[in-house]
Amino acid sequence: MNKVNIAEKFTQFNSYWDPKIVGELNGQYVKLVKLKDEFVWHHHEEEDELFLVIKGELTIKLRDGEIWLNEGEFYIIPKGIEHLPVAEKEVHVLLFEPKNTLNTGNTASEKTVSELEVI
Amino acid sequence: MNKVNIAEKFTQFNSYWDPKIVGELNGQYVKLVKLKDEFVWHHHEEEDELFLVIKGELTIKLRDGEIWLNEGEFYIIPKGIEHLPVAEKEVHVLLFEPKNTLNTGNTASEKTVSELEVI
Repeated sequence: MNKVNIAEKFTQFNSYWDPKIVGELNGQYVKLVKLKDEFVWHHHEEEDELFLVIKGELTIKLRDGEIWLNEGEFYIIPKGIEHLPVAEKEVHVLLFEPKNTLNTGNTASEKTVSELEVI
Repeated sequence: MNKVNIAEKFTQFNSYWDPKIVGELNGQYVKLVKLKDEFVWHHHEEEDELFLVIKGELTIKLRDGEIWLNEGEFYIIPKGIEHLPVAEKEVHVLLFEPKNTLNTGNTASEKTVSELEVI
């Protein structure tokens, strides 16, 4: 593989809620995604999910609170925990999660992306 | 868990080649490590290893070339591939790898750290 420059990869797409695969290791994917506005409440039955903010600010609503993430901060959503990512303005996020993770987890939605592009 | 501010975590230790655990998900650890000077040639039999440079510059020597990583760039060393991290100046790195990964892989060394601290 080649090295990955995260900022450069983010210049390659402009869609929201549409994760791109930028790395694979140990059965996991590294994904980059641009988020804006509100997603859908969902959880992942079997997969923990890491959100690392590369640029901007992200709120992750949980049923019992909220997490605010700034650039350079990450949070791991344990499997089974319902969450709702919310981005008031555009935010760039790196995700670490198992290869079989679906972006909307248990919640089928128009935002569900089942075929991810590798960039 | 709480959110993790990567820069803040790096203020909590000053040792080199001494990875700290800052997150766990799906049988993998997120680790932070400060590197300076040269490590030891090694490989990991079963684990792919991701190096993401948070601050500074890192060279990863391979038997057939070199990778130069700047801030915001990552590289995944596939299992079985010999590598030698070299940091001319101090560099701050985020690692993502399976929980059982030993820092020196197959090469027992004075730099081997078998009990990692969680910070």
